[in-house]
Amino acid sequence: MSDTFAFGLGFASRNLSGEPLDCLFPQPILRPDNHLSRICATFPKGTSTLAPEEIAKLDPNGQLAPAALLNKDQPLTCVNLSEDASIGSTPEAYLKLHLLSHRLTLPNTLNLDGIFAHLPNLAWTDRGPIDLQELPAVLLDAKLNGEHVEVMSVDKFPKMVNYVMPEGVRIADASRIRLGAYLGDGTTVMHEGFVNFNAGAIGPNMVEGRISQGVIIDEGTDLGGSASTMGTLSGGGEMVISLGKNCLVGANAGTGIPLGDRCTIEAGLYITAGTVVSVVDENREEIRKVKARELAGASDMLFIRNSQTGQVLCRTNRRAIELNDTLHAHN
Amino acid sequence: MSDTFAFGLGFASRNLSGEPLDCLFPQPILRPDNHLSRICATFPKGTSTLAPEEIAKLDPNGQLAPAALLNKDQPLTCVNLSEDASIGSTPEAYLKLHLLSHRLTLPNTLNLDGIFAHLPNLAWTDRGPIDLQELPAVLLDAKLNGEHVEVMSVDKFPKMVNYVMPEGVRIADASRIRLGAYLGDGTTVMHEGFVNFNAGAIGPNMVEGRISQGVIIDEGTDLGGSASTMGTLSGGGEMVISLGKNCLVGANAGTGIPLGDRCTIEAGLYITAGTVVSVVDENREEIRKVKARELAGASDMLFIRNSQTGQVLCRTNRRAIELNDTLHAHN
Amino acid sequence: MSDTFAFGLGFASRNLSGEPLDCLFPQPILRPDNHLSRICATFPKGTSTLAPEEIAKLDPNGQLAPAALLNKDQPLTCVNLSEDASIGSTPEAYLKLHLLSHRLTLPNTLNLDGIFAHLPNLAWTDRGPIDLQELPAVLLDAKLNGEHVEVMSVDKFPKMVNYVMPEGVRIADASRIRLGAYLGDGTTVMHEGFVNFNAGAIGPNMVEGRISQGVIIDEGTDLGGSASTMGTLSGGGEMVISLGKNCLVGANAGTGIPLGDRCTIEAGLYITAGTVVSVVDENREEIRKVKARELAGASDMLFIRNSQTGQVLCRTNRRAIELNDTLHAHN
Repeated sequence: MSDTFAFGLGFASRNLSGEPLDCLFPQPILRPDNHLSRICATFPKGTSTLAPEEIAKLDPNGQLAPAALLNKDQPLTCVNLSEDASIGSTPEAYLKLHLLSHRLTLPNTLNLDGIFAHLPNLAWTDRGPIDLQELPAVLLDAKLNGEHVEVMSVDKFPKMVNYVMPEGVRIADASRIRLGAYLGDGTTVMHEGFVNFNAGAIGPNMVEGRISQGVIIDEGTDLGGSASTMGTLSGGGEMVISLGKNCLVGANAGTGIPLGDRCTIEAGLYITAGTVVSVVDENREEIRKVKARELAGASDMLFIRNSQTGQVLCRTNRRAIELNDTLHAHN
Repeated sequence: MSDTFAFGLGFASRNLSGEPLDCLFPQPILRPDNHLSRICATFPKGTSTLAPEEIAKLDPNGQLAPAALLNKDQPLTCVNLSEDASIGSTPEAYLKLHLLSHRLTLPNTLNLDGIFAHLPNLAWTDRGPIDLQELPAVLLDAKLNGEHVEVMSVDKFPKMVNYVMPEGVRIADASRIRLGAYLGDGTTVMHEGFVNFNAGAIGPNMVEGRISQGVIIDEGTDLGGSASTMGTLSGGGEMVISLGKNCLVGANAGTGIPLGDRCTIEAGLYITAGTVVSVVDENREEIRKVKARELAGASDMLFIRNSQTGQVLCRTNRRAIELNDTLHAHN
Repeated sequence: MSDTFAFGLGFASRNLSGEPLDCLFPQPILRPDNHLSRICATFPKGTSTLAPEEIAKLDPNGQLAPAALLNKDQPLTCVNLSEDASIGSTPEAYLKLHLLSHRLTLPNTLNLDGIFAHLPNLAWTDRGPIDLQELPAVLLDAKLNGEHVEVMSVDKFPKMVNYVMPEGVRIADASRIRLGAYLGDGTTVMHEGFVNFNAGAIGPNMVEGRISQGVIIDEGTDLGGSASTMGTLSGGGEMVISLGKNCLVGANAGTGIPLGDRCTIEAGLYITAGTVVSVVDENREEIRKVKARELAGASDMLFIRNSQTGQVLCRTNRRAIELNDTLHAHN
């Protein structure tokens, strides 16, 4: 078994004091094989800055980073983690976010404790990240020289595509995908779509709604325009929300419970964990009334609001109901 | 009658292999008059690349493109279409999208078959479009040189305003208007507004919601914040959605049916084709219950949900109801 | 008392005709103390352009602007207002918008009459603001030279952070905060959040919804994803909407009435002024039915829609109801 949990050689932008603001890892490595792991083991543990000649000595065949990075003859940032402990530096936070966006691991599998503390709040501009203390002078100086600096966001997280561009993906508005998002092959995120860090779409998916932190949607599942997913199931513990395969959450709809496969929520309907739902079978007979949280994770559910009575219904079939019962029994 | 359907001289950005990534047509031409058409007829049919001296020979008075383009002494891309056939090249796709955004023709009037196949998926950056294969090297190289490349989107469609800026329009967030959108004079698109290609607002309009592909809203009609329009009428065929004059779709509301003139959907209410609606007259007497699809295209309708009974109502007047009957009879 | 209402030395970008397009005021001043006011009084009234040597003569110790601005040896724009009259020039409009974003005054406290007339509609690009008449030539010229100009928006208002970066704030998508927004310390605006000019969050707040022009949310109040606030109370006059402390408007919800403190609107529910609401007490007994506008400004209200009957409820407590009665009596 590998002694290395994760490893990356990267290049950091820095503020005027030399502190790292971010770090680009073109080739992040997760749980390398024994061969690579032996090379990684020769590098300093944790986060370090290494001169090109040191790196060349430790990794003479350039197996740990692309040539374009190694050949530039600049000091690089090295993050070398033997276990998945809580985050201890800015480059370490960036390495973990890269692992997710490079699809090397799924959301909710990494220890991200400490990430907010180690990500500085920065101005993300078309000149790259800028320390907020340094921003006003940069803006004024540019303006007085007839130049311009465009500020895109002021945030701890950068947009993903300035660091990682996964294959087979379309992203209509890149500002809405944070680094650390997992976008599987065949995923299209339209203009209204959003994917937080440590959240994602397994692919293929059509994402026109919001995938909150911690939420995963499985293949074939689509989120309509402005559809909302709550981060965690409020009440009764902190159940993580996920959506199974081939679900559809309609436009302007939302869910506060996890869904299994082949579930639909009609456009405009928001199901929260506390919504009282009338469960009906194929013959539209009511089987029982439950709070939606009791249906968490079940498959083959269609949620609608009867437009003449205002009643929220879950249409399902006998098989699904039996599964629900099992699920319910284990609650 | 003109032998030319559409014509454009443009300039294309290219990838490292020389393939066109996009094409800017500063002066696209639709169904030119006989005089211009005769000049167009001397150019090669379809898509071609022409040297400046060839163009000067065929169009000696520079009538087919602005001087700024012709005088640059660069090879130009020529698209010369005698009929509105399905799309056969990237520049042809761009010419048709330009025709829409230059307001030379309305949405749903052009043959756009093949458009997805002929639009490459690209990184749209502040250095222009970049081939996705070439992107990682560009990003890394910039970073190592202390520069920055900002990726705006990864998409087949670019934003409109980098190519066409129609007059009399305000667009609060340009990333939400695709090339191929039709924005009429007097249209304001606020930050939450969105207009897809082959979709549009006749103007004047206030657009704070989403105009899906194929959807048109007529003059005086406003979409509230996050208001949603479905692309086509699901069930019973593929009816295209349009909204007539002086309608209002409230904030967080939506429609899955086309509306005539002077219709209102209250904030937060989503009308799908299958929503059962109680139609009431001026005296609030119920006339009948119908699925909303049967009201498609009717005028003078006010849709609300009774907040005490949950019932979705369509308040209308006798004249509108009679029109509805006629419409219904032809269904 | 000060004779100066507001004062600013700034730098304007200009079109090819020399007209100001915008104005950056690094150090706007509101109601200066007597000492500063005496210096301001020596400057021309209204809007003027001053040579560096003139400024040096009037403000020899450089107290009215930062050294970086004064030392650049360029003509500056001076706005010197003795009272809060309607807006008379583009730089004056910019000064007032700066006052708000610098947190020198709250929304709805400045006279903004004339602001639309004095803000030119511009292309906001990564080369700075560009006159719309000049834009097509700039775009074409860049493209022909293998360069690129990115157009961010076409609007009368620029984004705030290109001019003002208030402390203690995160803004995930800077294009959604207009100059003139007031963002208090501790405010986070997520990707779906929006804050118009003359609107704001006192801080700390989590803003994932839309704060319309004129709307203020007080400390501890959160707006869920796509939550909507109406600009003014329709019907019964033009009551300005505000939300008190520690409120929560859920995802995809909205309000057309002002709320007091500790109010909640559940996810997906839109309360308009005309929504008929059943007010219930701690024991869930109905006390009365009212239009929501009669509850405007009351505290301790929880708005939900009964998911089995479709009835919109306001759950509250005796004390809150008594306050409501008082409020009602003064309507």
